[in-house]
Amino acid sequence: MRMRKRKWVSSYLEQDNKYFLRDCAFTLKDSRELILEIGMGMGDFLSQSALENPDKLFIGIEKDETCVAKALKKSEEKNLDNLYIILGDAKNLNTYLPNNSVSKIYLQFNDPWPKKSHHKRRLSYKTYLDLYKEVLKKEGEIIFKTDNRPYFEDSLISFSQNGFIVEEISLDRHSQENDDITTEYEKKFMAASLPVYYVKLRQGEKDEESI
Amino acid sequence: MRMRKRKWVSSYLEQDNKYFLRDCAFTLKDSRELILEIGMGMGDFLSQSALENPDKLFIGIEKDETCVAKALKKSEEKNLDNLYIILGDAKNLNTYLPNNSVSKIYLQFNDPWPKKSHHKRRLSYKTYLDLYKEVLKKEGEIIFKTDNRPYFEDSLISFSQNGFIVEEISLDRHSQENDDITTEYEKKFMAASLPVYYVKLRQGEKDEESI
Repeated sequence: MRMRKRKWVSSYLEQDNKYFLRDCAFTLKDSRELILEIGMGMGDFLSQSALENPDKLFIGIEKDETCVAKALKKSEEKNLDNLYIILGDAKNLNTYLPNNSVSKIYLQFNDPWPKKSHHKRRLSYKTYLDLYKEVLKKEGEIIFKTDNRPYFEDSLISFSQNGFIVEEISLDRHSQENDDITTEYEKKFMAASLPVYYVKLRQGEKDEESI
Repeated sequence: MRMRKRKWVSSYLEQDNKYFLRDCAFTLKDSRELILEIGMGMGDFLSQSALENPDKLFIGIEKDETCVAKALKKSEEKNLDNLYIILGDAKNLNTYLPNNSVSKIYLQFNDPWPKKSHHKRRLSYKTYLDLYKEVLKKEGEIIFKTDNRPYFEDSLISFSQNGFIVEEISLDRHSQENDDITTEYEKKFMAASLPVYYVKLRQGEKDEESI
């Protein structure tokens, strides 16, 4: 998510903030199950998830400074002890997190980069999937959601061709009962009865050498 | 497809008919690329495909006698030399066809068997996929089409969990240009602007022992 950069953001991000991992989570000592959201936007999903699941640890990655600052404020307001934020780019994922550390990665309503020449920037592109495999635990999962059909279709191909197995899928997620935590963005699609595409994937056989 | 059995059917099927393989294609000597349709109904798709692709060999399998009789009539009328019909059940597939013989299997608008207790009858159920793997060549493909969303979703899971890789997918096949041969049944969905779900799959790594 890219937002207009507000004046307060730079100085706010320079201040000490226990929720702000800046660019690395290696120093974090916490044995709770680790859930990651990449491209977390303003952290609505993640802060609500952290609130509802105190037994789990949540880390959000986002490259937009304004989004990160707003997400940090949410963590402070809710006084959470299980949500941390990294300002950074998913392409550096393996510098932020140890291998085999993540139980679940959420990719939700990310930029669909509709132009063919931009497809490499999609968070479901092969190069990103290779990074996810590194940080995911053997039994780790990916949850992918979007409102964009062509992006969903191409992502299913990419996941399938790069060793991920479908565990659950829905081509109209909100036509069925579910306990998803939904953001304002997602609620707009629900209100307009537009489909939200959803897939949950697990890794196929992971190479022994990468474990 | 199940149809009311007409009077002429039984006697017609007892007559000699060069297109009728009855229950086995092992004796067929033809080196052309083999395309299979399982649950071919009245053979509209298959007879048109055979007409347009004289360099390929088409075999249709169907368990309803009336459908088979009508499909045989189409082959006769079109005087085809590359379409054969088997009256039988997909569960006996490996008694009809040699292993590693089929280039492509079409599964189109088959019965979605919506009741949970009937899911084992779906042509994308694991037990059927195991049979398809046997008769498919190493680089063999499956084309799966349906108008039924829950059936499509569950089938994607089944294909994925049983070693098939997505090559192409569309959640609204006729919103894009394609050269599909469409039956009257499919045209009804197109006319009503209802989505037709489409996926093309290939086998993942095939066990050496089954080759």
